[in-house]
Amino acid sequence: MMEYNVLPLAKLIEQFERLPGIGKKTAQRLAYFVLQLSTDDAKEFAEAIVNAHDKIKYCKICKNLTDQDLCYICRNNSRDKSIICVVEDPRDVVALEKTGEFFASYHVLHGAISPLNGIGPDQLYIKELLNRIRSEEIKEVIMATNPTVEGEATAMYISKLLKPLGVKVTRLAYGIPVGGDLEYADEVTLSRALLGRSEI
Amino acid sequence: MMEYNVLPLAKLIEQFERLPGIGKKTAQRLAYFVLQLSTDDAKEFAEAIVNAHDKIKYCKICKNLTDQDLCYICRNNSRDKSIICVVEDPRDVVALEKTGEFFASYHVLHGAISPLNGIGPDQLYIKELLNRIRSEEIKEVIMATNPTVEGEATAMYISKLLKPLGVKVTRLAYGIPVGGDLEYADEVTLSRALLGRSEI
Repeated sequence: MMEYNVLPLAKLIEQFERLPGIGKKTAQRLAYFVLQLSTDDAKEFAEAIVNAHDKIKYCKICKNLTDQDLCYICRNNSRDKSIICVVEDPRDVVALEKTGEFFASYHVLHGAISPLNGIGPDQLYIKELLNRIRSEEIKEVIMATNPTVEGEATAMYISKLLKPLGVKVTRLAYGIPVGGDLEYADEVTLSRALLGRSEI
Repeated sequence: MMEYNVLPLAKLIEQFERLPGIGKKTAQRLAYFVLQLSTDDAKEFAEAIVNAHDKIKYCKICKNLTDQDLCYICRNNSRDKSIICVVEDPRDVVALEKTGEFFASYHVLHGAISPLNGIGPDQLYIKELLNRIRSEEIKEVIMATNPTVEGEATAMYISKLLKPLGVKVTRLAYGIPVGGDLEYADEVTLSRALLGRSEI
């Protein structure tokens, strides 16, 4: 294929095209926008990418994103550490925090069991969750995986592992629309779902 | 506003949010994607931004984008330099080149006259176009500005300046887009297509 754009621009377009949900035309539009930024702004953008990538790691306890050893929730002593809310993704933590009604702790699995995509329990942070429940004083585990087939299966799988440990396991109420994505639920729906949680 | 994301991530999301047509949710999705890139890929992305920004400048002759003094079209001696196609944006050059049927040269105005947006003739590369016509042997200037109010006004303005210089000025044909549906063509386009009809 012949390349009509000058090389550094073509490379930048290519980079944007690799982003999820960004097509050829949008990638071109974004690249041209970057060209029109001030030099400082362009540098800031580039640094933000490298910085985010270099500095962010997983919290040693809950596997949430953090730039320190522990995330800001695990560092916070006023949070109720005896309740763990299990989510698939760090974005779900952000969504739940935005309800302003949850003051316990989290555990981020970083995915859901999905045999079709080759993701089994071993690729998720399930072992680490079990270790927390064995070593900390945990009263309740709230399964807040997505209301999808994979999320459900993951919740069921984990709850079966947790039952023998004598911990109460609950599931978010179906205030959240079935087949939806936790990340996109609105705050009110999410708080309803938290309030209506039931034992599994 | 309370920030629920860890700072380097929040900063990256903010950077993506500044891009045109990228909302909060999309910015978050893109930032998380970047986090999951390999370190090398993230660096490559960052470098592509800085590189494109630093290396790309305007061609000394036609104001198209280039990383050298002259763009690849102006450097190409097999192109017909006696015909200049005037466009608003470097992306229009790419679009016309893709037809594979245009072998002359270009002149990029970098915008269109738009009093509402405070863009007058002096902010465009019109003076440079006039200089080219005075100093080079130009037979024809094709006005290929957009078929919008601003593009039309710009084409009219420039053609008035060019007429006294004794150069032939043409305008891209208006009509129904190939592969389109007559039913969905707007009235103005249809009447232009009727006016511009040719014998078969």
